[in-house]
Amino acid sequence: MESNSSGSSSTYAAAGVDIKVADQAVQLIRDAVCSTYNDSVLSEHGSFGGLYSLIQTKSMSEPVLVTSTDGVGTKVMLAVEVGKLAGIGQDIVNHCINDILVQGAQPLFFLDYIASGQLDPFLISEIVSGMAQACRQSGCALIGGEMAEMPGVYRTDQLDIVGTIVGLVDRANLLPKMNIHPGDVLLGLASSGPHTNGYSLIRRIFENIPMDQVNSELGQSWGEALLAPHRSYLPLLQSEICNPSSKIKALAHITGGGLIDNIPRILPAGMGARIKKDSWPVLPIFRFIQSFGEIQDREMYRVFNMGIGMVVILAPNDIEEIRTKITEETWVIGEVIQKEGVTID
Amino acid sequence: MESNSSGSSSTYAAAGVDIKVADQAVQLIRDAVCSTYNDSVLSEHGSFGGLYSLIQTKSMSEPVLVTSTDGVGTKVMLAVEVGKLAGIGQDIVNHCINDILVQGAQPLFFLDYIASGQLDPFLISEIVSGMAQACRQSGCALIGGEMAEMPGVYRTDQLDIVGTIVGLVDRANLLPKMNIHPGDVLLGLASSGPHTNGYSLIRRIFENIPMDQVNSELGQSWGEALLAPHRSYLPLLQSEICNPSSKIKALAHITGGGLIDNIPRILPAGMGARIKKDSWPVLPIFRFIQSFGEIQDREMYRVFNMGIGMVVILAPNDIEEIRTKITEETWVIGEVIQKEGVTID
Repeated sequence: MESNSSGSSSTYAAAGVDIKVADQAVQLIRDAVCSTYNDSVLSEHGSFGGLYSLIQTKSMSEPVLVTSTDGVGTKVMLAVEVGKLAGIGQDIVNHCINDILVQGAQPLFFLDYIASGQLDPFLISEIVSGMAQACRQSGCALIGGEMAEMPGVYRTDQLDIVGTIVGLVDRANLLPKMNIHPGDVLLGLASSGPHTNGYSLIRRIFENIPMDQVNSELGQSWGEALLAPHRSYLPLLQSEICNPSSKIKALAHITGGGLIDNIPRILPAGMGARIKKDSWPVLPIFRFIQSFGEIQDREMYRVFNMGIGMVVILAPNDIEEIRTKITEETWVIGEVIQKEGVTID
Repeated sequence: MESNSSGSSSTYAAAGVDIKVADQAVQLIRDAVCSTYNDSVLSEHGSFGGLYSLIQTKSMSEPVLVTSTDGVGTKVMLAVEVGKLAGIGQDIVNHCINDILVQGAQPLFFLDYIASGQLDPFLISEIVSGMAQACRQSGCALIGGEMAEMPGVYRTDQLDIVGTIVGLVDRANLLPKMNIHPGDVLLGLASSGPHTNGYSLIRRIFENIPMDQVNSELGQSWGEALLAPHRSYLPLLQSEICNPSSKIKALAHITGGGLIDNIPRILPAGMGARIKKDSWPVLPIFRFIQSFGEIQDREMYRVFNMGIGMVVILAPNDIEEIRTKITEETWVIGEVIQKEGVTID
């Protein structure tokens, strides 16, 4: 009796592989995974667990690991529908990188889990290639992963993608810092689209609109605009988070909950933020989403990033210094106020 | 338009929470999660990422992180069917602990991902309580997690559970060691049942047998026997893996692929193992599985652990010393031979 025709699982850096499709996927992703390795990675592709040397921490006063695990949510359903999976691999890696970046951490390594009712080695290869690309861009090793085929758990042709990241920061450089005051400014960094949030709503709104239909104003298809990969803000902010005398007081990654829910998470008790609505160019895709879905303004700002994927908090006097170091356009989108909550007007 | 009635996700240590059911689950699991914290955990429950201080590594010559990510596979379907989820929480934690233990690592922290077509806060609370229990037993902090509700991806009433573990070892103590020779012995440690492997096969075999039916020989119901949680071998082996002069040469965690596929993974090229079939008491549940499923002997040893969940490799002269330190019965189940592959006779 063959036991492994379904329900088996296989990792490319942890456990036994015993189904052909997984073997094929492992072969296909080997080069992509290895391309992310650096001198700190001590394990070989296919070994038990991933091994990562912390010899670099010898020079730190108190090394602190920062870790987060996340899924890509229902954006994956849109990616499956459109048949473009590489971007979703970048999405999960960059989402995780940004989540630990806001605590001042640089990524060390990433692990992924991909599960489906039926594993398609080519789709998995495309996803992992996207992950590897994002990992290389941020100097993060794709050190382990797991694939699982569970037809009884997952719907036909559907899949889920989960990522876990581990990063490092010297305790003295942890963000947010304690010196946030009313009058500090919020500097916004551009997003590339909805990133990985609001996709259940997006999928309902675009239910009857073909994803390959090109919109002339966007200059691309709906699918391309809606699947634009989540940006990593590490390249823009890396030199600052490594700088012990950086003027950055805090960072907020604008994910589910938008500007309204994410900014208060890094503010001291009793403080809030006033956002100036027209202070940055809202990405056109959000206007289409709002119009097609007939969504109220406030709801838009609670679900979507509206074109701002990362918010930097700093003193007004430091704006120009930080702007010089962030090598792209940024916008002063608001300020910290002595009242809890976020107003947008 | 309400955007978060489905497809939303929530973490209890990473990102925004905005659906009631997730909030309820977060409330329910708070105490369980916090009960796993120790002095190294710097983050509070509900903060962005999990923060773990590595101040302890100051005394190590080269600290190495060991990491692994894994799912529980289709054992979760059986647990859902029987309605007992706490054990599956222990399963994923202990599986991960054992996976890094075989490289000599002690666990630092664990993160979980639980996704379903519909989140049930009480089921999630039961799962996380099981995880927390296993974490406490092994001194591992449950430092982060994510819950996702994706009805379009997961079948109704089904869920998936994924875990990621990070552990620590001084590079000089990494396992396996390089001194494995033919003639070294394999010492077997008892499993509690099938652990987390072979459940697609088990579910087919037991398809028409009520899980609450008590078997008189087992003295428990089929459900209880088949859902016995995966053991953690850390308590038995912790003092030895922390001992730089330990006589343990290697450990093999017997997961998917059984003794046949897992032992060769830690042996040097050109070596294999000869297993003596009657050298340990095969757990009764495996005899029932084999009989009900009419499964060949070799197939049983390739799918199941057959009562041996961890194998220790050591020189024959060191058997008594190691046995004294492992505070329960163990069995010499075979030896290393100068020929690749595993024979069982």
